[in-house]
Amino acid sequence: MRVVIPFKKENAKTRLSEILSEKQRQDFALEMLLDVISELEASEKFNEIEILNSSIFSIMNTEFPGNVNVLLSEKDLNGALNEYLEKLASHNMDEVLIIMADMPLVTKKHLLELTSLTADLVIAPGSRGGTNALLIRKPDKFHVDYYGTSFLDHLKIAEEAGLSVDIYDSFMMSTDIDEPKDLVELLIHGKGRAAQYLRSIGITLDTNTARLVFNNYK
Amino acid sequence: MRVVIPFKKENAKTRLSEILSEKQRQDFALEMLLDVISELEASEKFNEIEILNSSIFSIMNTEFPGNVNVLLSEKDLNGALNEYLEKLASHNMDEVLIIMADMPLVTKKHLLELTSLTADLVIAPGSRGGTNALLIRKPDKFHVDYYGTSFLDHLKIAEEAGLSVDIYDSFMMSTDIDEPKDLVELLIHGKGRAAQYLRSIGITLDTNTARLVFNNYK
Repeated sequence: MRVVIPFKKENAKTRLSEILSEKQRQDFALEMLLDVISELEASEKFNEIEILNSSIFSIMNTEFPGNVNVLLSEKDLNGALNEYLEKLASHNMDEVLIIMADMPLVTKKHLLELTSLTADLVIAPGSRGGTNALLIRKPDKFHVDYYGTSFLDHLKIAEEAGLSVDIYDSFMMSTDIDEPKDLVELLIHGKGRAAQYLRSIGITLDTNTARLVFNNYK
Repeated sequence: MRVVIPFKKENAKTRLSEILSEKQRQDFALEMLLDVISELEASEKFNEIEILNSSIFSIMNTEFPGNVNVLLSEKDLNGALNEYLEKLASHNMDEVLIIMADMPLVTKKHLLELTSLTADLVIAPGSRGGTNALLIRKPDKFHVDYYGTSFLDHLKIAEEAGLSVDIYDSFMMSTDIDEPKDLVELLIHGKGRAAQYLRSIGITLDTNTARLVFNNYK
């Protein structure tokens, strides 16, 4: 199966700017991406892993845990992904998973479960109405519409196209990391590089209050 | 199987007090409880549904969707539940599900999946390190420790007691309703009485921004 991961390192995770420097946000975004790719590889479900990026410079020196293609697009998220889907459709290719790079709690187990669902469209909802993963089995009949409550938008697009839908309900996959409070979830449940990165720069968890602690903060 | 639901109507959901009056918070808390009980009933898994409450007055006129026992305790959450577990153990009763009343996105499907897991302890994590459901198969060997990151505490208690643990990973079950932003999740994903209640008092969702809208607000 093919998987595409939109990724942006420049100006990444601006809502974390009150607690992380620009360099730290970039490093952290990359660690989350690497966590996601590790699990995609571990699942042994994906023979084509593609990163959709606006700049080659941001990841050109990165060592990825597996074979990865980097696709460049200057379009916005919806524009770039819909162009990608059109290209798949025009080459008669089916089945692609779109997965976000900022969901470091995803594991191989989730990916195996999600891809075993059989509907035309499988959606893993994110918090705040987001869409954290979309398995699209008929790229010729679907287009994405991220931003806002994209979960509801994607349900509607599928309905209008007569596509069947399965919802993959996972707390871990719903946890996208946008705001400082999301780091709490990562420190509680995370076992990968992104959680380790936070600890390495001195961000830990107060388990009495479930709040972040900034310890020897670098 | 036996299930116990801690419930508090007085001073319920104080973190919603900026947008709901005390009466509304009480009504809303009750609607959420009724949603949970409806799904427990629908699952046909539970022959004993018990509500653990500090006052009989708060729910004495409520019509429940099923047979419900009301247990009274003046102890705090941990004290009341641990006393309950001790009583079960002393009567050689096994298997009890503890489920929170403020998780109106739970469905029959979740309850069937969760109870089909076979470990000594099954935990459904809540956001912010919470524990939204606990299936305890050996009440003589476990005690609860809510507050703070109870999810981690419960894992630790199980480990120290030599109990096996399954984690039931569901976004819908992780969504407990404490703060205004949690209402966004309820309005996006909710199909029951609690979501309907919010709409009835004029609280809806702006699907462009995923923010609450207070419309003809009562």
